[in-house]
Amino acid sequence: MDVKNINELFKQDLSAINLGLESFADNLKNEGVKAIQVQWKPPAGGNMEIAGLLDKYDAIKIKVGTDEANKKAAEIINKGKPTLIDVSTAGESIPGMKKNMILHAGPPVTWDRMSGPTRGAVIGGLVYEGLASSYEEAEKVAASGDIIFEPCHHHSTVGPMAGIVTWSMPVWVFENKAYGNKSYCTLNEGLGKVLRYGAYGDEVMAKLKWMESDLAPIMKKTLDLHGEIDMKNILAQVLQMGDEGHNRNRAGTSLFIRELAPYMVMLDEPKEKISKVLKFMHENDHFFLNLSMPASKCIIDAAAGIEGSTIITTMCRNGTDFAIRISATGDDWYVAPATMVDGLYLPGFTEDDAAPDIGDSVITETVGIGGFAMAAAPAIVKFVGGTPKDAITFTTKMYEITETENNIFQIPVLDFRGTPTGIDVAKIVETGILPAINTGIAHKKPGIGMVGAGLVSPPEKCFLDAFKAFVAKYS
Amino acid sequence: MDVKNINELFKQDLSAINLGLESFADNLKNEGVKAIQVQWKPPAGGNMEIAGLLDKYDAIKIKVGTDEANKKAAEIINKGKPTLIDVSTAGESIPGMKKNMILHAGPPVTWDRMSGPTRGAVIGGLVYEGLASSYEEAEKVAASGDIIFEPCHHHSTVGPMAGIVTWSMPVWVFENKAYGNKSYCTLNEGLGKVLRYGAYGDEVMAKLKWMESDLAPIMKKTLDLHGEIDMKNILAQVLQMGDEGHNRNRAGTSLFIRELAPYMVMLDEPKEKISKVLKFMHENDHFFLNLSMPASKCIIDAAAGIEGSTIITTMCRNGTDFAIRISATGDDWYVAPATMVDGLYLPGFTEDDAAPDIGDSVITETVGIGGFAMAAAPAIVKFVGGTPKDAITFTTKMYEITETENNIFQIPVLDFRGTPTGIDVAKIVETGILPAINTGIAHKKPGIGMVGAGLVSPPEKCFLDAFKAFVAKYS
Repeated sequence: MDVKNINELFKQDLSAINLGLESFADNLKNEGVKAIQVQWKPPAGGNMEIAGLLDKYDAIKIKVGTDEANKKAAEIINKGKPTLIDVSTAGESIPGMKKNMILHAGPPVTWDRMSGPTRGAVIGGLVYEGLASSYEEAEKVAASGDIIFEPCHHHSTVGPMAGIVTWSMPVWVFENKAYGNKSYCTLNEGLGKVLRYGAYGDEVMAKLKWMESDLAPIMKKTLDLHGEIDMKNILAQVLQMGDEGHNRNRAGTSLFIRELAPYMVMLDEPKEKISKVLKFMHENDHFFLNLSMPASKCIIDAAAGIEGSTIITTMCRNGTDFAIRISATGDDWYVAPATMVDGLYLPGFTEDDAAPDIGDSVITETVGIGGFAMAAAPAIVKFVGGTPKDAITFTTKMYEITETENNIFQIPVLDFRGTPTGIDVAKIVETGILPAINTGIAHKKPGIGMVGAGLVSPPEKCFLDAFKAFVAKYS
Repeated sequence: MDVKNINELFKQDLSAINLGLESFADNLKNEGVKAIQVQWKPPAGGNMEIAGLLDKYDAIKIKVGTDEANKKAAEIINKGKPTLIDVSTAGESIPGMKKNMILHAGPPVTWDRMSGPTRGAVIGGLVYEGLASSYEEAEKVAASGDIIFEPCHHHSTVGPMAGIVTWSMPVWVFENKAYGNKSYCTLNEGLGKVLRYGAYGDEVMAKLKWMESDLAPIMKKTLDLHGEIDMKNILAQVLQMGDEGHNRNRAGTSLFIRELAPYMVMLDEPKEKISKVLKFMHENDHFFLNLSMPASKCIIDAAAGIEGSTIITTMCRNGTDFAIRISATGDDWYVAPATMVDGLYLPGFTEDDAAPDIGDSVITETVGIGGFAMAAAPAIVKFVGGTPKDAITFTTKMYEITETENNIFQIPVLDFRGTPTGIDVAKIVETGILPAINTGIAHKKPGIGMVGAGLVSPPEKCFLDAFKAFVAKYS
């Protein structure tokens, strides 16, 4: 700028563009000066260590071909064909399952560190399985060292909330028809007093036994008669019907019922049993959650272990810890304390009753549904809080931390734009934008159950640690 | 403005606000002058006769208490409790039905003026009813004068598209539990070759006979076992699930199936028959249309005949004419030629194949659903054309011509705002905004069927004529 221009500049009214601290802009505005505030944070929130890592990452990225690796991961997610192929039991089907093993949601956790709802569900699970004869005994058995606790995720499995899976429990069996990998999930127990929220007791046990004796066999025979179900197609439809596949599953449950009912009535079973199964599904809009979860799990598992890829392949929590895994570092967990959920509470409960964030259901977000598709489900805010505008904002923001747009899952109100798909941990670190997650809330004590639902910000630390590990691996 | 200010004015750059004809603004813009175009039309489009009527209306309105009358009409609409109470036949239930009577959609029309699809459906209906032994003979019978043709609307009935109802046809029976009035509608035949789109032939007849022998009796027994169904509740839910209750009914059909399936399996009927009924509903997302229509009909009928009210109580068409009725003038029809639909066509068809606008389904718009709730159903644009933004614009505009916001039907994406409810013919005349209607498109020739779906602007004349009649009545 030459001197003449500088003189010109000072003749003009002052207009400022302010980056960062908003108080500078406020001061200018108070003096009657036009000031535009730009929402800007330095990369990694000004953390010099992370800023240094980001510099290293820029070099590594080119060396190891992260762009191509992430493109490949996203393509694998988009090409996934999650298909419901069978109803079986954990013992029969889940690889590595043992009679004295209990699978749980989230990353590895020992009995002494388990959250209230997880403990409650373990206690219930041990009694259900006959590994303890009373709830009191179950606590001792759980602490005895005779029980092997492992994450669902170590066994191609996902579990909502506490996510407890024992040997005899019925499971949905999924296959990703594009890549051949399988996934598993228990059947949804409904609302109210249920094991997954840490409740136990006679009512809970009776329902679990009925699910084993009636629900699962009828579902299996129905599925055998109907044939495999392309769950990607159904998931695509539910996003056009106000569901997001995580905490709103009314359309999914409806479509599943209407798909199977014509076959279910054909079974050689007492009609009272069939009617009870249809009613059970009808009265529980979350029935579909235990289908959208393993569908997501078998999609994302195919994208694990890609050298150089920063795509997140697991997010999960157990009420104690939140944890993620990223593609390039395979089975390594990046763990931080689970955060509290900001939500709406059932009558009689408050945030003082809440356990920290829990469950594997956040697997849905890794494939572009759930919180990432909230714009498709504005009515969900009645369940998790916020406004329909928030729902659209959540989805829109998620495009900034994802690799691609889904080729099948579309959001009508965003002009059928594909959902933000393939979460990139590097983009999370760069932008400081955390994944949008909506979730149920369990009571913090064992034996009680659901107390609400809401929105949760996962702990930043997991994502930073994963990113550091990525940089370290390739440095 | 004093002289000094005028001088000031001419020193400034010229900025113009242009009302009305856009070409003035365009000319200014071409000269580099800032011009803001305001979308403005003089009341009644500048029609001096109507402008005069509007003046008279302003006086009448106060004299006859139109504000209170319309408030009352809107309250009746909001308080309506449409309830599915029975499955019967037209002959058994519809008041005034006769064996040699054929009900049709839209306002009264004689055989010689009937549209192609209406004729096709009449021909099919006569053969179905045994009033003619061949389709050739049916044409003669129809023209003979022995058949009484009357509008569905003269018999508390509504019919989609051609809307043909004959003596033996099964009908849904609705009661408005708040006001005691009833309404009737045939059961939906599905897509493809169907009577309502003017198709006939063996396939059409076989399905109609199956509906009479199997579908309706099974639905009746199921409903008897289940008990009455509060259809307002279901309609409220479908608006949260991407339906608008007129041309998108995927959620409605799903909710209806899941509600009834647990009861249907309990019937003492061969399971093959039950399975076929469940499959028939599952394969036809419009099954719910024939429930949303009579639900709307029994809501709006309670608001008819209110002295001083300008609320529209009927909109309908028969492929020849479009017609409306307003509350204050009771059973009087205001008729104009039906318009063409702007839509998407099925493969192999173009607008040259289309019949003009047809059917009673536009009854849904009179109670705040259908086109008036399109913002709740952005995915509908894949069926009727346009963009999701258009869908929101349609709904938003309709608030300008309606009396109130619905107390039960809400639109999530508009922050759960109640749908625009109670169409006021005076507001239509004042603003020039016509009701938003989406619809199916029938082939113009008898015997063919559906060719597409789209959006239609009803003829302005009906609304002007109704308004004139209102002013004349009270002058």
